[in-house]
Amino acid sequence: MSTQPGAITHTPEQPYHAVIFTSRRTDGDRGYDAMAARMVELGATQDGFLGIESARGADGLGITVSYWRDGAAILAWKRNAEHERAQAGGKAAWYAEYHVRIAKMERAYGGD
Amino acid sequence: MSTQPGAITHTPEQPYHAVIFTSRRTDGDRGYDAMAARMVELGATQDGFLGIESARGADGLGITVSYWRDGAAILAWKRNAEHERAQAGGKAAWYAEYHVRIAKMERAYGGD
Repeated sequence: MSTQPGAITHTPEQPYHAVIFTSRRTDGDRGYDAMAARMVELGATQDGFLGIESARGADGLGITVSYWRDGAAILAWKRNAEHERAQAGGKAAWYAEYHVRIAKMERAYGGD
Repeated sequence: MSTQPGAITHTPEQPYHAVIFTSRRTDGDRGYDAMAARMVELGATQDGFLGIESARGADGLGITVSYWRDGAAILAWKRNAEHERAQAGGKAAWYAEYHVRIAKMERAYGGD
């Protein structure tokens, strides 16, 4: 389980699931950074959480990938009350555009 | 099909596949930016390519998600000769660490 900024998550053998969240921010912070940090902290306490990776480039596109044991864990997190308030804030204020994709991991490999 | 920097890909109905590539760069460019731009250009010409999203944050973590029609299209791209040379360069020089995850998209939703 990893929430360390800048770290690549060490995930288990397949199958597991991922939520790919791509977004474009609106201008200004308006509480965004504090909310985002809190959601990483809260998400990491959820049953089935495996890790998270996040990057936002200079062109404004952000990609956050969170890894989960299964679809039930993802659904429970989506319905978490504090997370639901953050999702509502995202729609209302923080994101100009966003897309959520839920995927089942089939295989993985890496190197270092 | 989208390769526009900073744009969110408009993908078709499920199922389709994604390659999640997370990486940490080594120091210095050493031809990296030109290679990366060329791989986006070349990848977009491949059969089954649906789009690509990429971000690298100030902490150095990069996430690139490319979307593909199916696993066969991903395998054909992995075996493309020019892409194979780029992969070898990545292992030898450009990446301190990387991880490749291949996933099947189950559902998606968004807003703007």
